[in-house]
Amino acid sequence: MRRVLISLLAALAFSTLSISAFCSGPPVSDATDDCLACHTEATPGIVADWKKSLHAAVTPSTGMEKKVVERRMSADTVPENLKNIVVGCAECHTMNPGKHKDTFDHNGYSVHVVVSPGDCATCHPVEVTEYDKNIMANAYGNLMSNPVYHDLADQINGIQTFADMKTTLVKEGDETFADSCLSCHGTVVSVKGMRKRETVMGEMEFPILSGWPNQGVGRINPDGTKGACTPCHTRHQFSSEMARKPSTCSTCHKGPDVPAYKVYSVSKHGNIYDSLSKNWNFTNVPWVAGRDFTAPTCAVCHISLLATEDGEVVVKRTHQMSDRLPWRLFGLVYAHPHPESPDTTIMKNAQGLPLPTELTGEPVSRFLIDEEEMVERRKEMEKVCSQCHSYEWVEGHFAKLENTIKTTNEMTLTATKVLLEAWKKGAAHGLDKNDSIFNEEIEKMWVRQWLFYANSTRFAAAMAGADYGVFANGRWFMAENIQMMKDWLEFKLKSE
Amino acid sequence: MRRVLISLLAALAFSTLSISAFCSGPPVSDATDDCLACHTEATPGIVADWKKSLHAAVTPSTGMEKKVVERRMSADTVPENLKNIVVGCAECHTMNPGKHKDTFDHNGYSVHVVVSPGDCATCHPVEVTEYDKNIMANAYGNLMSNPVYHDLADQINGIQTFADMKTTLVKEGDETFADSCLSCHGTVVSVKGMRKRETVMGEMEFPILSGWPNQGVGRINPDGTKGACTPCHTRHQFSSEMARKPSTCSTCHKGPDVPAYKVYSVSKHGNIYDSLSKNWNFTNVPWVAGRDFTAPTCAVCHISLLATEDGEVVVKRTHQMSDRLPWRLFGLVYAHPHPESPDTTIMKNAQGLPLPTELTGEPVSRFLIDEEEMVERRKEMEKVCSQCHSYEWVEGHFAKLENTIKTTNEMTLTATKVLLEAWKKGAAHGLDKNDSIFNEEIEKMWVRQWLFYANSTRFAAAMAGADYGVFANGRWFMAENIQMMKDWLEFKLKSE
Amino acid sequence: MRRVLISLLAALAFSTLSISAFCSGPPVSDATDDCLACHTEATPGIVADWKKSLHAAVTPSTGMEKKVVERRMSADTVPENLKNIVVGCAECHTMNPGKHKDTFDHNGYSVHVVVSPGDCATCHPVEVTEYDKNIMANAYGNLMSNPVYHDLADQINGIQTFADMKTTLVKEGDETFADSCLSCHGTVVSVKGMRKRETVMGEMEFPILSGWPNQGVGRINPDGTKGACTPCHTRHQFSSEMARKPSTCSTCHKGPDVPAYKVYSVSKHGNIYDSLSKNWNFTNVPWVAGRDFTAPTCAVCHISLLATEDGEVVVKRTHQMSDRLPWRLFGLVYAHPHPESPDTTIMKNAQGLPLPTELTGEPVSRFLIDEEEMVERRKEMEKVCSQCHSYEWVEGHFAKLENTIKTTNEMTLTATKVLLEAWKKGAAHGLDKNDSIFNEEIEKMWVRQWLFYANSTRFAAAMAGADYGVFANGRWFMAENIQMMKDWLEFKLKSE
Repeated sequence: MRRVLISLLAALAFSTLSISAFCSGPPVSDATDDCLACHTEATPGIVADWKKSLHAAVTPSTGMEKKVVERRMSADTVPENLKNIVVGCAECHTMNPGKHKDTFDHNGYSVHVVVSPGDCATCHPVEVTEYDKNIMANAYGNLMSNPVYHDLADQINGIQTFADMKTTLVKEGDETFADSCLSCHGTVVSVKGMRKRETVMGEMEFPILSGWPNQGVGRINPDGTKGACTPCHTRHQFSSEMARKPSTCSTCHKGPDVPAYKVYSVSKHGNIYDSLSKNWNFTNVPWVAGRDFTAPTCAVCHISLLATEDGEVVVKRTHQMSDRLPWRLFGLVYAHPHPESPDTTIMKNAQGLPLPTELTGEPVSRFLIDEEEMVERRKEMEKVCSQCHSYEWVEGHFAKLENTIKTTNEMTLTATKVLLEAWKKGAAHGLDKNDSIFNEEIEKMWVRQWLFYANSTRFAAAMAGADYGVFANGRWFMAENIQMMKDWLEFKLKSE
Repeated sequence: MRRVLISLLAALAFSTLSISAFCSGPPVSDATDDCLACHTEATPGIVADWKKSLHAAVTPSTGMEKKVVERRMSADTVPENLKNIVVGCAECHTMNPGKHKDTFDHNGYSVHVVVSPGDCATCHPVEVTEYDKNIMANAYGNLMSNPVYHDLADQINGIQTFADMKTTLVKEGDETFADSCLSCHGTVVSVKGMRKRETVMGEMEFPILSGWPNQGVGRINPDGTKGACTPCHTRHQFSSEMARKPSTCSTCHKGPDVPAYKVYSVSKHGNIYDSLSKNWNFTNVPWVAGRDFTAPTCAVCHISLLATEDGEVVVKRTHQMSDRLPWRLFGLVYAHPHPESPDTTIMKNAQGLPLPTELTGEPVSRFLIDEEEMVERRKEMEKVCSQCHSYEWVEGHFAKLENTIKTTNEMTLTATKVLLEAWKKGAAHGLDKNDSIFNEEIEKMWVRQWLFYANSTRFAAAMAGADYGVFANGRWFMAENIQMMKDWLEFKLKSE
Repeated sequence: MRRVLISLLAALAFSTLSISAFCSGPPVSDATDDCLACHTEATPGIVADWKKSLHAAVTPSTGMEKKVVERRMSADTVPENLKNIVVGCAECHTMNPGKHKDTFDHNGYSVHVVVSPGDCATCHPVEVTEYDKNIMANAYGNLMSNPVYHDLADQINGIQTFADMKTTLVKEGDETFADSCLSCHGTVVSVKGMRKRETVMGEMEFPILSGWPNQGVGRINPDGTKGACTPCHTRHQFSSEMARKPSTCSTCHKGPDVPAYKVYSVSKHGNIYDSLSKNWNFTNVPWVAGRDFTAPTCAVCHISLLATEDGEVVVKRTHQMSDRLPWRLFGLVYAHPHPESPDTTIMKNAQGLPLPTELTGEPVSRFLIDEEEMVERRKEMEKVCSQCHSYEWVEGHFAKLENTIKTTNEMTLTATKVLLEAWKKGAAHGLDKNDSIFNEEIEKMWVRQWLFYANSTRFAAAMAGADYGVFANGRWFMAENIQMMKDWLEFKLKSE
């Protein structure tokens, strides 16, 4: 009965839709027609957004006809019933219904709320497989299952109380975690129950999800898959223009811990992008340096397929974002060669801490990529640089970066030595006292040293955005912070 | 005589003007013709700017012919003499001459410098009335007539001197105030006198204004009206495109006290705006989600009239910007339900302080909107969200926000307790000693806790820009600041 | 032999090049043809970039035919062999081969890597001469040859170690300096040697440069010239659009020491630029206020030739960027009238320090421009303002700025007095002890006062971006910092 009503409404709705888009345009499935019948009214914004997408304009068959180097899809075949219709609401939201715990009956359809990488893999399997080998896909577990990182998060998110000159920490709730770290790292999305509510279509029942909404890169989805495609390929336009523009990366990579976007903004590359990109082509596949863009965006260096004008591949597309990265600049606690496994919880240093380096900086090599792999990755990156720069330029650039990795690690070591002295003298309580290493002021200053200042300085070197290596959270702050730690320790020892 | 000269010059000037714009174009008044005759030479930039405006292209009559939902004017009628001419220099700068203390004789015209909301109300009365009920219209008085806020401003703007290990505060002058807080809050603009000077037209006399230039939202104008339209609808193009773009709001809402723009920038909404808005329509009235834009700007959520493609109103246009806001996130000292009156100086808490909450956080409910009104405002906002998001998504979003309001208020309370302890122990001097509560370092740290860190965290939750809830002035800083306050107190007690 | 090979390759390459661009287009020299033959393959990005440039589209002859006010070249004549060919690779990279220490044999050509202002002067002599009189051209020497500034840089860049509750400074290496201060100030680029390597063309030999890559404004080039044009006119498009857009200036002027770009961003001018500049013309010469742009960018106020629509010059183009600047807002240690000589190392104050003011703020007038010159420069700037603003508006604006210069200098003096007290009491070691004045925490706090906070406040006043005068590194921080210095001093005296 309801199904009939829907179809009637659909028919009505179509009478007001543009003929070119839906009658003489590419074929839309009946199921998607049914969705559109109501959702054109219920959520008009996303319907209009989707209509602007390639998904609404091209069928998988057409997508697969292109030359490999020009294809946006990595599947060589897709299920028969999907081949000759565009990718509409129903195609994604009713895919693999049995796997999704958030599947519910919606007007006779088994619909799920959270479209996952598992669903996207139908047409984009290579991207999903690569992404899965990515640290980003593991961002939830890497934070929550590593006791050191989890404690850092608790010390940031928890509620402190104060009495008798002492502070006490009350653990944060799930909602706080979801609103802070897990915004980017991803939540666990699960079904708490069902709830009925009135809609324009009468009473309907919907699943209530915990950890929702969330668009974190390492989200654990109701179908058990890890990660999310939408942080970069945002609903419902899924625009490659957006994924290729730096502001997309900035939603997670702008803060003082990982100021990649800010550094890019003050780099010459970012400056060229800001000044001239209105004339660039952000949709061509393959993407060609010089013709389509005259300076790299984040995607150019880290992800995109680049080719020459003749269609010869320069670097392949990769969704394992560390494929062109020898170093992990992001210091935990020190910058180090990239981890081998995207699951970083497996690492243990000599002290038994789940860290890629010792507290004094030595890398725990057995969990990290070796020299050979580092060389390989740097060579891959240099292919990108070489589109515009001479070999000598590129060598000089990376020599500066390696020096900066070394010197920032040294400045982190000095800060660590002040902290160890504070622990030794009892001015603060750390590992030896089985106390958090992140709760006291000198410990927080130590965290600033590597998480804010050394990281900023290294990103600045890597992407040539000098400000962030000097006065914008850079070397000025590393140098000052050591003096502040030393003074704090002096004052503390005196005040006890 | 001079008038004749002007007319001659006008005739001359016209010979060089584009025929299409001024001969066959919409009619310009004789008075405006006279203005243009000289000002095309004297201030060519603003003349050219105005020529690009709708004011220069459309007469009020034409504006009023449109369907209500498509109208940019809210007046149903305007004075006869204005109906069929475009809105030019003279129309605004000679409006209500008797009311303007800055009116002066200028080539035979009674011209005033500062066009005020009272003048704009001729064509836009609803907007002016709504704006007047806005906290922004009261931004001058709310700062200057509230002794607590005024003292905070003095402690920021005043000149400190140092001798005998003590600092003394010398009050700032008016120019300093005008250059800092009142840049956004608005100055009192008044006529100090008249001054003759040489111009290309010979010697002329002009009023000298104090508090000028200024474009603050709560400016007190020479005609006695409050507020200014130009901060958002900037001279002389008065472009709706500009008012609808987020950078316009950023001129006052970007600092660490109220980082709305920065939060938006790292939100997914801001990211979509940054990546794709070059294809949006910023001038359509009404504005339609999905068709005209695919993510909200500040104006979409807080101000604009939104409608469906069929012209059905989704939310009405409002210039009382809190109409869709249940909470005042901006903590003074704590986040609280929005004040009922835009004049916030009338509030008194139990201690007699002109604050919306007690120092320990309890809201002073009789000055604040009630639960019912809060629900109403949130429903209004949710109509905007629902253009693209499901009910469950929206509920989940606001649940996180309410949790964050609660927890950030708790972290402010903890900081307050450290401060109260410092006052109690005499380590700092506060209310009990009749001393400023903003002049000593621990007091300034306390201000940081709510004004910078708790505010940032709440804005981040409200607009889903996670960075500002964690490492960019967010929870990391709330947590660390409490440790710093505690340590300061320890060191201070020891050093006395 | 190799030359023949190159020519063959060139012929081959041309067969695939667009006919319109290179056959019927403006003539390319044979030498540049040879470059393109390989570099279209070797570095396709910069070749494509150059093809989009005016250099690739216009010959000097054509450029010199224009009316003076419309010319982009300042040379009245150029060498005969350059007149009727476009400005290609070889024209610049083989110019003045004898002067360049980085000249090397490259396929039979004497090519140099680093194109310098000396080369650009062939067509742009006035710009190069003006730029040479600029503080920016002297940015390397002014930093490195001034012992006070050099020590500040060392204290920022050096590696600190910690033992026995003391820190020790190990001087930074050249690579660190190149990655930090000298990124903007410019390095000394010199030839370390030659190195052979395999290329697609077989084994070739290239010079190895130290201090490379670098695009600092005061770079010392291998031909002995000072400065670089490419930081603003970036290779290889040399786009005036880019030079005229504010993000170009932001690569060096965004940090907390000199936040010009950030201030601009929150100013009304910056807001208009952000909202409406997509409709502006960034390539017209001369540039006309109102017609081409409706708010100034950095270039409008500080550099560009502005004219009326009739071609009458409003202000002349200048590459001596201080021509319209009476004050040097950038406090070293205090804001002061602009230095007379761009070589600021010649200054000596009464204490013998190479500074433009005494430590207590009095300007060392004999090295600074006099009152008359200050008036002259301000008048020049006011011509720009007057394109849109009345005389009274402009006067009011600059009155606020002068007040802010005065009050921020006073707040720096107060911070200096706390520092002097610390030195006097032995809580820190300064000039009297022959110790660095930048290494201890209270000294660093003192630097923050003028380098970050007073500077931000002054830039905010100069460009009407209020945030940076209050809560974004402005007056709030000046006021708080004095309290922090005082408390530090108290704690230090007590802890000894």
